[in-house]
Amino acid sequence: MGSVGLDRVLEPAGVLPQAAWRLDASPEIGPDEVRIRVQRLNLDAASYRQLAQKHGGDGAKIRSEVCEIVATRGKMHNPVTGSGGMLIGVVEQVGPESPLPVKPGDRVATLVSLTLTPLRITDGLAGWDGLGEQVPADGTAILFGRSIVGVLPDDLAPELALAVYDVCGAPALVDRVVRGYPAPTVLVLGGAGKSGSLALAAAKRAGARTKAIVVSAKERDALRQAGLADEIAIADARDPVAVREAAGENTVTVVCVDVPGCEHGAILATAPGGTVIFFSMATSFSAAALGAEGLAADVTMLVGNGYVPGHAEFAVGLLRSTPGVRALFEARLAAD
Amino acid sequence: MGSVGLDRVLEPAGVLPQAAWRLDASPEIGPDEVRIRVQRLNLDAASYRQLAQKHGGDGAKIRSEVCEIVATRGKMHNPVTGSGGMLIGVVEQVGPESPLPVKPGDRVATLVSLTLTPLRITDGLAGWDGLGEQVPADGTAILFGRSIVGVLPDDLAPELALAVYDVCGAPALVDRVVRGYPAPTVLVLGGAGKSGSLALAAAKRAGARTKAIVVSAKERDALRQAGLADEIAIADARDPVAVREAAGENTVTVVCVDVPGCEHGAILATAPGGTVIFFSMATSFSAAALGAEGLAADVTMLVGNGYVPGHAEFAVGLLRSTPGVRALFEARLAAD
Repeated sequence: MGSVGLDRVLEPAGVLPQAAWRLDASPEIGPDEVRIRVQRLNLDAASYRQLAQKHGGDGAKIRSEVCEIVATRGKMHNPVTGSGGMLIGVVEQVGPESPLPVKPGDRVATLVSLTLTPLRITDGLAGWDGLGEQVPADGTAILFGRSIVGVLPDDLAPELALAVYDVCGAPALVDRVVRGYPAPTVLVLGGAGKSGSLALAAAKRAGARTKAIVVSAKERDALRQAGLADEIAIADARDPVAVREAAGENTVTVVCVDVPGCEHGAILATAPGGTVIFFSMATSFSAAALGAEGLAADVTMLVGNGYVPGHAEFAVGLLRSTPGVRALFEARLAAD
Repeated sequence: MGSVGLDRVLEPAGVLPQAAWRLDASPEIGPDEVRIRVQRLNLDAASYRQLAQKHGGDGAKIRSEVCEIVATRGKMHNPVTGSGGMLIGVVEQVGPESPLPVKPGDRVATLVSLTLTPLRITDGLAGWDGLGEQVPADGTAILFGRSIVGVLPDDLAPELALAVYDVCGAPALVDRVVRGYPAPTVLVLGGAGKSGSLALAAAKRAGARTKAIVVSAKERDALRQAGLADEIAIADARDPVAVREAAGENTVTVVCVDVPGCEHGAILATAPGGTVIFFSMATSFSAAALGAEGLAADVTMLVGNGYVPGHAEFAVGLLRSTPGVRALFEARLAAD
C-alpha cells in the first residue's frame, strides 16, 4: 500500500493523501516515488473561481493565498472547493522501484489531482500575476507508484496538452456511457468549456445527437463555429425549469458547469432510464440523490470518475481529429 | 411543471422545492396537491446524528431545534447535513387534479424526502423526548402531483413499514446493479443497518456472494444471526487500508455508513470494472471523484438514487420473505 502514498500523510494519520489535511512534501523520494521539478500548475476551474471571487480579482492576494495553501497543506488542495488541478514539469529523479514509465529529463503532466500530490513551491510564484488558472511555478512535486503521469506530446504546446489532460476523464467516460444506448441524445450543460467541448466531441463521435446549454451569446457563437452541437440554447444551468424547457428530455446529460445548483436541471432534462454524469466539482451529493428521489426520476447518476484507462490518449486524439475542439481550447488559452 | 411543487417555493425563487431555503407550508391545497395529517416523522439517520451530537444528546434541545428548522424552512431539511427523512399520516384532502392513488382516510407513508415536503408542526412535538429518529408529531404535510406515496401494508406495523420505506431505494438499486454482473461479490459497508441489511438481502437474492463490514462485535453477532452475509468483518469504514485488508476486492461495494470519509475505502475495495454505490448522505462528491482518479481506479460510482420504480414493494417483499432482515429491523425499532 506504500504505492498510494500513505507514507506522505502527516495528518490525520491513516487516511489516503487526498483525504489528508497535510502531506509531507519534502523532496527526498522513497524507492517507488518520482520527483518532478515543477514548471507550471493548472488550477482547477472551481478552485480558481472561488479564490478570485473571495479576493475580488486582486491578483496579489490570490497568489498569496495559493502560496499559503501549499505551504500549510503540502499540496494545492483548496479547502473550500475541495479541488486542486494538475501540473507540468520535468522528471528529476526516479526511485529504483517506481513502476511509472518515465525517465529523468522527460517533460510530463501529472494526471492525478493536485489534491493528493505532495508539492513544494520555492519561488513564491513570482512569475504569476494571480489572474488566471495557469500558474508558472518553480518547486518540486512527488508521484507515487500508483499515480498516473503522461509524457507531453511533441505536436502540442505544453499548455494545450495540460489543459486537455486536466479534463481527459470526461470524454472517455462519456464515450463509454453513450455507447451503451441505441440512438442516444446527449445534452451537455456548459458545452463551450473544456470538459464540455470534449464531452460533446466524444458524444458526436459515438453517434449521438448532441445538444448544449451555454451561458452567453458569445459562448453560443464560439460553440456554433466549432460544429460540436446539433442544438445550442442559452440558459442558466442552475434553473431547472429553464434547462428542461430549453433542452427537453435526453438520453444522457453531462454536467460540466462549475457552479453549484445544476443537479436538478440535469435530472429534469434526462429521460427515464437515462444517465446523468456529474463532472463538476461543485456538485452536491445530497442535492443529486434527494433531487432524483423527489422528482421520482428513474435515472442513473454517475460521479464523474477522472480516471478511465486510456483517457489521456483518447482526449488528445479527439483534439487532434476535431478542429473545432482545438480552436475552442486555443482561444481559451489565448484569453487566459 | 406545477406538479413538482414550484408554487410552494418562497425563496430563492425559481428553484425546485428540495433546493429551496424556504417553502410555503400552508395547509390549503392546490388542484393537484394532497394534504396529509401528520402522525410521525422518521428523521434521516445522518440528520438525527448531527443534531444529537451538536446538543450532546440533550433531548429537549434536539426537539427545540427540529421545531425551529420546520418553522423557519417550512420543511424538515437539516441545513448542515442537507438531509431530511420521511413521514406517516392520514390523507385528509385530495385535490381534484391529483394523480396520486390515495383517498381521504388512507394511512400512508411519503416516499419522497422531507427536504422537499411542505411541513407544518402544530403540537410543538410535545409527544417526543428528542432521543430517537422516530418523532410522534401532529401537523400537516403537502404532496405534489409528482410525489411518491405508499399506502401502509396491513400486515406490518406502521413504524416497521416506515423504516423500510425510508431506505427502499437501496435494495432495488442494488438488485439492478448486481444483476448486471456474472458471479458477483458484493461488499456492504454498514451491513447491519437498515439500508445495509436490505442491500445484503437483495444482493443475496440476486445470486451474489455477500460480505459485510460492521463497526462492533454486537453488530457482527446480530448480522451473523440474520444470515445475510457470507463473510463479516469488524473494521472502521473510514480507514481505507483496514477496509481493503478486511474485504479484499469486490465486484460491487455499497456504502451504507452514515459518517463522512468512507469514499476511499469503498473505492479501494472494488475491483477494476466494478461499481461503488453510495447511499450515505454523508458522501462527499469531490472525495469520491478525486479519490478514484488519485487511485487510478476504473470503477463506476453511482449516486444512490432513492427512486427506482417499484422500490417500495420490492423492499417490503424482501422484509416479508427474509426473516433475518425483519428481525434486524424489529430489534432496531425496539431499541429506538
